[in-house]
Amino acid sequence: MGRDLTALFDPRSVAVVGASDDPAKYGHAVAAQALRAPDRRPVHLVNRRGGTVLGRTAATSLSAVGEPVDLVVVSVPGAGFEAAVDEALACGAKAIVAITAGFAEAGPAGLARQRAVADRVRAAGAVLVGPNCLGIADNTTELYLASDRFAPGGVALLSQSGNLALELQLRGEPHGLGYSRFVSLGNQADVTLVDLVQDCARHEATSAIAVYAEDFGDGRAFAAAAAAAGKPVVLLTAGRGTASARSAQSHTGALTTSADVVAAACRDAGVELVRTPREMTVVLAALGAGVRTRGRRTAVFTDGGGHGAVAADAAEDAGLDVPELGGPTQDALLTVLWEQSSVGNPVDLAGMGEQRPLSYADTVGALLASDEVDAVLMTGYFGGYAASEGGLGGSPAGGSVLAEGEARAAKEIVSHLVSAPKPLVVQSMYPRSPSCRTLAEAGVPVFAATEDAARALAAMTGREAADRSAGVPPLPSAATPLADPGYHGVRALLGAAGVPFPAAREITDEAGLLAAAAEFEGPYVLKALHVLHKSDAGGVALRLADRDALLAAYREMHARLGAPAYSVEAMADLTDGIELIVGVNQDPRFGPVALVGLGGVLTETLRDVAFALAPVPAARAEALLRGLRSAALLDGVRGRPAVDVAAAAAVIERITTVAAAHPEIAELEVNPLLVRPDGALALDARAVLRRPLHPTTCALED
Amino acid sequence: MGRDLTALFDPRSVAVVGASDDPAKYGHAVAAQALRAPDRRPVHLVNRRGGTVLGRTAATSLSAVGEPVDLVVVSVPGAGFEAAVDEALACGAKAIVAITAGFAEAGPAGLARQRAVADRVRAAGAVLVGPNCLGIADNTTELYLASDRFAPGGVALLSQSGNLALELQLRGEPHGLGYSRFVSLGNQADVTLVDLVQDCARHEATSAIAVYAEDFGDGRAFAAAAAAAGKPVVLLTAGRGTASARSAQSHTGALTTSADVVAAACRDAGVELVRTPREMTVVLAALGAGVRTRGRRTAVFTDGGGHGAVAADAAEDAGLDVPELGGPTQDALLTVLWEQSSVGNPVDLAGMGEQRPLSYADTVGALLASDEVDAVLMTGYFGGYAASEGGLGGSPAGGSVLAEGEARAAKEIVSHLVSAPKPLVVQSMYPRSPSCRTLAEAGVPVFAATEDAARALAAMTGREAADRSAGVPPLPSAATPLADPGYHGVRALLGAAGVPFPAAREITDEAGLLAAAAEFEGPYVLKALHVLHKSDAGGVALRLADRDALLAAYREMHARLGAPAYSVEAMADLTDGIELIVGVNQDPRFGPVALVGLGGVLTETLRDVAFALAPVPAARAEALLRGLRSAALLDGVRGRPAVDVAAAAAVIERITTVAAAHPEIAELEVNPLLVRPDGALALDARAVLRRPLHPTTCALED
Repeated sequence: MGRDLTALFDPRSVAVVGASDDPAKYGHAVAAQALRAPDRRPVHLVNRRGGTVLGRTAATSLSAVGEPVDLVVVSVPGAGFEAAVDEALACGAKAIVAITAGFAEAGPAGLARQRAVADRVRAAGAVLVGPNCLGIADNTTELYLASDRFAPGGVALLSQSGNLALELQLRGEPHGLGYSRFVSLGNQADVTLVDLVQDCARHEATSAIAVYAEDFGDGRAFAAAAAAAGKPVVLLTAGRGTASARSAQSHTGALTTSADVVAAACRDAGVELVRTPREMTVVLAALGAGVRTRGRRTAVFTDGGGHGAVAADAAEDAGLDVPELGGPTQDALLTVLWEQSSVGNPVDLAGMGEQRPLSYADTVGALLASDEVDAVLMTGYFGGYAASEGGLGGSPAGGSVLAEGEARAAKEIVSHLVSAPKPLVVQSMYPRSPSCRTLAEAGVPVFAATEDAARALAAMTGREAADRSAGVPPLPSAATPLADPGYHGVRALLGAAGVPFPAAREITDEAGLLAAAAEFEGPYVLKALHVLHKSDAGGVALRLADRDALLAAYREMHARLGAPAYSVEAMADLTDGIELIVGVNQDPRFGPVALVGLGGVLTETLRDVAFALAPVPAARAEALLRGLRSAALLDGVRGRPAVDVAAAAAVIERITTVAAAHPEIAELEVNPLLVRPDGALALDARAVLRRPLHPTTCALED
Repeated sequence: MGRDLTALFDPRSVAVVGASDDPAKYGHAVAAQALRAPDRRPVHLVNRRGGTVLGRTAATSLSAVGEPVDLVVVSVPGAGFEAAVDEALACGAKAIVAITAGFAEAGPAGLARQRAVADRVRAAGAVLVGPNCLGIADNTTELYLASDRFAPGGVALLSQSGNLALELQLRGEPHGLGYSRFVSLGNQADVTLVDLVQDCARHEATSAIAVYAEDFGDGRAFAAAAAAAGKPVVLLTAGRGTASARSAQSHTGALTTSADVVAAACRDAGVELVRTPREMTVVLAALGAGVRTRGRRTAVFTDGGGHGAVAADAAEDAGLDVPELGGPTQDALLTVLWEQSSVGNPVDLAGMGEQRPLSYADTVGALLASDEVDAVLMTGYFGGYAASEGGLGGSPAGGSVLAEGEARAAKEIVSHLVSAPKPLVVQSMYPRSPSCRTLAEAGVPVFAATEDAARALAAMTGREAADRSAGVPPLPSAATPLADPGYHGVRALLGAAGVPFPAAREITDEAGLLAAAAEFEGPYVLKALHVLHKSDAGGVALRLADRDALLAAYREMHARLGAPAYSVEAMADLTDGIELIVGVNQDPRFGPVALVGLGGVLTETLRDVAFALAPVPAARAEALLRGLRSAALLDGVRGRPAVDVAAAAAVIERITTVAAAHPEIAELEVNPLLVRPDGALALDARAVLRRPLHPTTCALED
């Protein structure tokens, strides 16, 4: 699976077209980088004026090179771009890195140009990165075709921003983070983010994939590729704020922002979503440790209260649990600690570390050995006993003895980790101290900031290392398109898929009404059909006790609204029920995306909703419901019985599966989905088809 | 106002009792520090064994010094503590810094001991810091009585943790942050956090007060002192997580966690609440710039998309607004920028900065001059043109010319700030570059991390420099204690204060019931009194249409519950109403604290509530309501009319004022407070007195 990018990352030969001796030209920087590994593969420099570039004779054209070239970097002015690509293909290039700008980012004409070029590249069996990119690099094959240098290491960095990539590279250095590959994504005219994630997943030297992307292209394919990568994928993206301004057609639409969709896709795909370059570095450093655990029970420990309290809060802010430790663990700690030490959690050595630094190691050992503890966060002064050179603070008295003890403690901590491999993260006021370096060299993430340590630990917990492919749900095959997007057509579609509805008949006159009333018992509901926002318009009458009440309601409503049709329905028993909303929108990037939440006025005002890629399996649907802020309502409050969440989850699976099989439905919504103690029942449904003839009036039902 | 701490911070002479030549003893470190300014004031070292300490002859006792001593540091073992303090007082000491530990932190006996000592100190007209503290320092008077050195500067640091103070000191260095004073708070047996905040407020050399505290003592007095300080107060505290586990007696109680109370007190007092040492440093660096603004409209700008998008999100995450810039500002930007630059917001130079670094300055100038822009966040590469030594990245071609341009741009940015002083914060990949140093030296906060820059800007916006004393409400004088804490007693108390209730009568038999029904119209409500959780127990009957329905309900309820009394009430018109909850709890540290939120089941499940120090002025009550997540309900959704928020706010002021005047009421709750389009009406009320005889059944009304 995936495209063969061998010629891109490990070409047999390289040419830089547009190589320049002018330091102000980008073709100069790329050529200089390309020449860094002269013995690895032939590197040809091409400049249409010929002459000398970086002390080498430049060929006046690629054809003039006189031998086949596997990879061609194109860094020429826009007018010459197509000719350069065509010549490269003619010369047998299997990979092109297109630096030239002025295409899709400049408007529709540029988009058309890059599409045409990409078609020719693919037809030639080649691949193209860019255009409008800054180049690529592969440290594992000594391929340097971008102006920046990236320290070697295990992270493949795929970025739509050159400066952010540069910041990540600078930030990684103190954490020992290096890069296996760097790809500037550019406009993704041919090679896409998805292709690159798939290739980096196969790339043995890559241990983690870091992505900065603003445009995901096929977002669902990205999510699927990330879920299948078998190695951590960390995503930095933007647009949480402004994206929320997007207008929409319906409740579901109004609540579905692209930021929510991205977050849901990342969660489903097991992608670590981060918000800043610093957070990305922290998470990459954490994942580099290689130790991961499903549990989140975290022991926080320090020597000297303040740091423990602050770190415990930071840990909980990051989503970790900091539970009180049970008797056996406390007893184990007390065998190695002072009487005055706190062993509840946070654990506080209470000055013992200053007398006997090995107590740090003893504590780590006892905590790692406890089956109540999934992860350990050590915070505060550790590192300071041997760091008198490091800060303004005078080193404690008796420094050298303590420094020796601390150095031994660091080594013992490392050996404890070998026997009980669990996530351990350290926050130290002296992160560059010898003791902290000992820990860092053994793979323990060490940070200066408490919140970074907590964030790192959060990235190492909550899932198994092998649990990344939790799941991007496959799309069902497309079903026969919905013929009747009206209310009863949608009911029929969902009903056929096993979504339960109350009995209902569509009627257009009094005779039909009376016939319907004879078919099932009251109380009844009467709904006007083909009326926009029918609830607000007074087009819904509930609790009509009998045939007479139904008839009276019909006459009143028809006189007022004159709707072309109505629905007569059996009134559901609302006792002890909770109303949910379930919607599915077709996202242009991520395909069908489901929303679940509390229905009614609460949906609009409290926005207590959750998103997931559709179709949503019942187990995930239940997790989404249980994760709502108002989830306590589901279990019954103030003496009300709990509702049947499993039934609701099963119905959500059916609704979202239907929506996923009907790409022609832009929005499908069941609102309310009534959940009672004994099951779930859909009380209303609506669909909006794609590309309606009259976009402003496409919401026929409300 | 406030205690005279002159002898503490600027003593005429100092003695260190417990000075030691043994580097393992704390008395050694303190003595060594004390001797750093030998010419400023006499420093006497006292060791009961005499001999030599740090090359000086030690006196064997304070009395043996032979002259009066203004300030005495006591660093002796616990057994000798009282004697040392008494001798100090006898020798005329006006200030004592008590380092000795083993008092309140060790249990009740220690608490009693330190109280007795503090009484004797106060009786002698002296002051005492500690015990169980690490000392104090005042860089403005060359007073060094703690083991750590603090770089001089404008921040007064009051800390309950020595290690956190040390971390703050280390973190401040790169930001040029220094300290005017450091006080290790210890057990606050005599001199409290409040005394110190008041003194630091008066201290001219102190420009900001930084506090790390776990125990606020009199939290309300702290809030009031901070509000009145006239300079920024920044608070780092802990306990957000574990505090929430606290059990409570009622809705209000269950929702009031100490973290909520602290956050509310800080907001009311204008205290910047931070969560980590790093955040504290960021905020202090921001406040050090001295420029503050009420508005939050932030222009984000960069050269090269990614950083702008990430920073815009970070700014919004930090509570800033990043609105699209209007035509005039865009036009002004276009006069200085390229055609391809983005001028909406974020502003993106789109490569122009790389060609002409002065465009950074032009942009800052245009943004600062715009009346649409309150603050500017510059992010990304700036600093990099002259920072080729700083990172792995090769410096861009033509470095030196660009470096010169960038240096000029930095200077021009500074001059733009002089003519339009607005908050400007910079995030740079090269924060230590010459250009960034130019900015930092002119007072512009410069950070490496985007989120730090955003947090800093948030601290500089949203209020005027002079607007810190927004308000800790003064407590009204105590009223006559509530005689009848039963339902009708509480109604009478609140009713007398102008809280409107429906008509009601307390009755104990059918005759009373019928008499009540004759006094006002139905429909009626019947409530059983003196029944715990009366709603859940079926002790409330609503919508009783007439006298007969009322009587029937009474008979049924009385047969079932046999309550000693009932309340007959006029049923309020609930149409278009919203139910709020208003509660006031007496917090042991912050006094009366109010809670407002949505009433009913939502209060428990969604916890959409807000807190404030009581009494709550109507304007603040309205702001609290408008700040609820569900605030949109107040303005009417789905065609419902808006409710009378001003009326609700006025009633909240009255309820919270009553509670504040009745310290004997541990909890006062109006739930629901019905707010309709035409006013507000209290539908139920309850009170719990302090120290009830039967704590488990003290909630008589529900």
